[in-house]
Amino acid sequence: MGSDNQRTRLPAQTYGTGRVEAFSDGVIAVAITLLVLDLRVPEPIAGVSLAHSLGELWPNYLAYVISFLAIGIMWINHHSMMKRLMAVDHSALVLNLLLLLCIVALPFTTALFSTYLNDRSGAHLAAVIYAGSFLVTSVVFVALQWLLVVRRPYLLSEPLTPVQRRSILLRGAVAVPAYLLAALAGLLTPYLTLAVCIGLGIFYFVPLGPRFASAAGR
Amino acid sequence: MGSDNQRTRLPAQTYGTGRVEAFSDGVIAVAITLLVLDLRVPEPIAGVSLAHSLGELWPNYLAYVISFLAIGIMWINHHSMMKRLMAVDHSALVLNLLLLLCIVALPFTTALFSTYLNDRSGAHLAAVIYAGSFLVTSVVFVALQWLLVVRRPYLLSEPLTPVQRRSILLRGAVAVPAYLLAALAGLLTPYLTLAVCIGLGIFYFVPLGPRFASAAGR
Amino acid sequence: MGSDNQRTRLPAQTYGTGRVEAFSDGVIAVAITLLVLDLRVPEPIAGVSLAHSLGELWPNYLAYVISFLAIGIMWINHHSMMKRLMAVDHSALVLNLLLLLCIVALPFTTALFSTYLNDRSGAHLAAVIYAGSFLVTSVVFVALQWLLVVRRPYLLSEPLTPVQRRSILLRGAVAVPAYLLAALAGLLTPYLTLAVCIGLGIFYFVPLGPRFASAAGR
Amino acid sequence: MGSDNQRTRLPAQTYGTGRVEAFSDGVIAVAITLLVLDLRVPEPIAGVSLAHSLGELWPNYLAYVISFLAIGIMWINHHSMMKRLMAVDHSALVLNLLLLLCIVALPFTTALFSTYLNDRSGAHLAAVIYAGSFLVTSVVFVALQWLLVVRRPYLLSEPLTPVQRRSILLRGAVAVPAYLLAALAGLLTPYLTLAVCIGLGIFYFVPLGPRFASAAGR
Repeated sequence: MGSDNQRTRLPAQTYGTGRVEAFSDGVIAVAITLLVLDLRVPEPIAGVSLAHSLGELWPNYLAYVISFLAIGIMWINHHSMMKRLMAVDHSALVLNLLLLLCIVALPFTTALFSTYLNDRSGAHLAAVIYAGSFLVTSVVFVALQWLLVVRRPYLLSEPLTPVQRRSILLRGAVAVPAYLLAALAGLLTPYLTLAVCIGLGIFYFVPLGPRFASAAGR
Repeated sequence: MGSDNQRTRLPAQTYGTGRVEAFSDGVIAVAITLLVLDLRVPEPIAGVSLAHSLGELWPNYLAYVISFLAIGIMWINHHSMMKRLMAVDHSALVLNLLLLLCIVALPFTTALFSTYLNDRSGAHLAAVIYAGSFLVTSVVFVALQWLLVVRRPYLLSEPLTPVQRRSILLRGAVAVPAYLLAALAGLLTPYLTLAVCIGLGIFYFVPLGPRFASAAGR
Repeated sequence: MGSDNQRTRLPAQTYGTGRVEAFSDGVIAVAITLLVLDLRVPEPIAGVSLAHSLGELWPNYLAYVISFLAIGIMWINHHSMMKRLMAVDHSALVLNLLLLLCIVALPFTTALFSTYLNDRSGAHLAAVIYAGSFLVTSVVFVALQWLLVVRRPYLLSEPLTPVQRRSILLRGAVAVPAYLLAALAGLLTPYLTLAVCIGLGIFYFVPLGPRFASAAGR
Repeated sequence: MGSDNQRTRLPAQTYGTGRVEAFSDGVIAVAITLLVLDLRVPEPIAGVSLAHSLGELWPNYLAYVISFLAIGIMWINHHSMMKRLMAVDHSALVLNLLLLLCIVALPFTTALFSTYLNDRSGAHLAAVIYAGSFLVTSVVFVALQWLLVVRRPYLLSEPLTPVQRRSILLRGAVAVPAYLLAALAGLLTPYLTLAVCIGLGIFYFVPLGPRFASAAGR
């Protein structure tokens, strides 16, 4: 990879970003694709129409879309983060591995949520676990971003102004209270968890003009 | 990646194409490979020959081949599209993510179709969903192509002539009415859906001489 | 990717090899890893020891190793083949896609073989299908190699001498009669199919000194 | 890939490291992600709370974390190893393939362990197999490292001092007695195997200051 640190003047204990990006991309790509395994094909049952069987699986379809977009947004943000780096060190590799550990578990919490959404007794807990898994993932993400931007500025390929630094950290941190809210909402009703997660997806996806673009791009 | 926009004069809110390609390749590669999960090994049953059991699964084998080639063609076209770009912006990333969301769902609609093809009551709906999923994927693909070619010409590494632009859009758009036809055919009989999808595969695969090559290559 | 044909004088309808390699690598990597799904965890059954349950699954373990090494060898050969190229054209992309279609099906034929190896009635057919799937894959591989080396010499980054060309084609073609033998052996007894496949793996793996190395490396 | 050996003076039978890295990354990324398949969603059962059902699956969650981190560490070490190389030869490719064969089997041995941890009769054997699979993987890893560092010094991009060589080999070799201990511990009680594996993970993860960093980075 062109960005490997063979020709740089960094201390020997750093790594180029090329293979970290490639490995992270691979893991996130597999995790996001495994979400399809929760789109189950209903067993053909005599006397029950396919339309009815598919209709009963609507939580699976909705959860697939929400989780796919949420993981996709994480990938876009991960991409932006790595783009700023010249190299990573051991702490960054370890935190990145923890982040991937969280992301890989998301297809599981998604399947748990969609299986129990219409189950009277388990729905609350499943919703809390679902939003909670995204919450933990966001916290690890912010920790990694904080490590790179605040504690390891020498790993950046270009220095950041204080304004840029704050904007980067804020944008990542916004997900933390949102997912906390979604998790708490699950204690009331799991459908509120769904609604908060959908709202968060829309917030990240709808372009907000130059202000948004400049926060995301740098 | 060589094509990352480190040395270009693009506005800061764009991204290099290298990691977008790598992530898209990863997702499409996993999705196309997960099709194998629909090639189920029949349970050994006393008194039933393996040849008979495998014979009953022919819709699975046929659907595997059709979907593999269809997703493969999408990858080739995605490849051609990214090759023309110098960078992507947030809208392109978002549309690309929606495209991947559709592609990842295709192993599910394929499994649905092959499970219900010989089921009297569900076959029509399964065929419509199968062709419909490819239809939606094609529409998102054309939308992404239109965004890049018509609305964001400054992201292209080389300007296109109007003839080239029309040729690119037409070639992608051809799949839309074809899959619409395949979906409507499913209302009559699911086997007609199969036939249309096979025909579409052959259309894309058989080289049509220089006229075809120049449309595909540029 | 460094080898993309942005700076070459090839006709416009060719593609750089970078993304074809990346996509093929991705598909082969997923296919080879999905072999693990055939290593099934036996259900805990009261009164049956785990050692006994695992012992009954030995065909799964053996088939896993054989298929892993066989797909691994294909990847090494694919790697050698792409290394010689400067670019690919539409025919090469299509043949490569067919090759991937065959490779992705191998975890299925492997699972079929390991499930039926100790089944009296289905074992012969399963063995023929297993060896047959590798046979078809080898034939497509040789066809792709022949296309690139004989029919599209202008895609090579360096011209080959007739001796090199023959050596490359021979080395790939050797797998065809071997897998044909393995498939025919399955008509007698599936264990002979296993033996031939193991022998073929050893043939490719044991280094044969400089003669072998120069055939493989160029 | 920038590190491909097109412009080097190596013998013709070597390969660039770019695609070996990409393929290994792909395989390890898929294997690590497949661990999520062992995080099973419990069937909703009337009268049994979801909290209770999830609680019973704690071995699955613990095994997921341990195996994820262990495979992640292997990836980091693989990364460090490949970084030192200018090229690989056939023996290195073959050993690397054997290493991947072991790594891909780890999700299976992980699932086996978590399924049988609380099973009276099978737990000892499952623990031995679990630690044994990591033991074999470590042995192959050390063998590959020894091949590259001791037997093929001409493949390194920069010569190593004897001190560096010893430090690299020692650091990899430390896992061998540790996993041997974990496997033997399984004969006493599977929970001791768990404890040793957790301890090993912590040893690798907690940064030990400059001494550690220099051993890991070079």
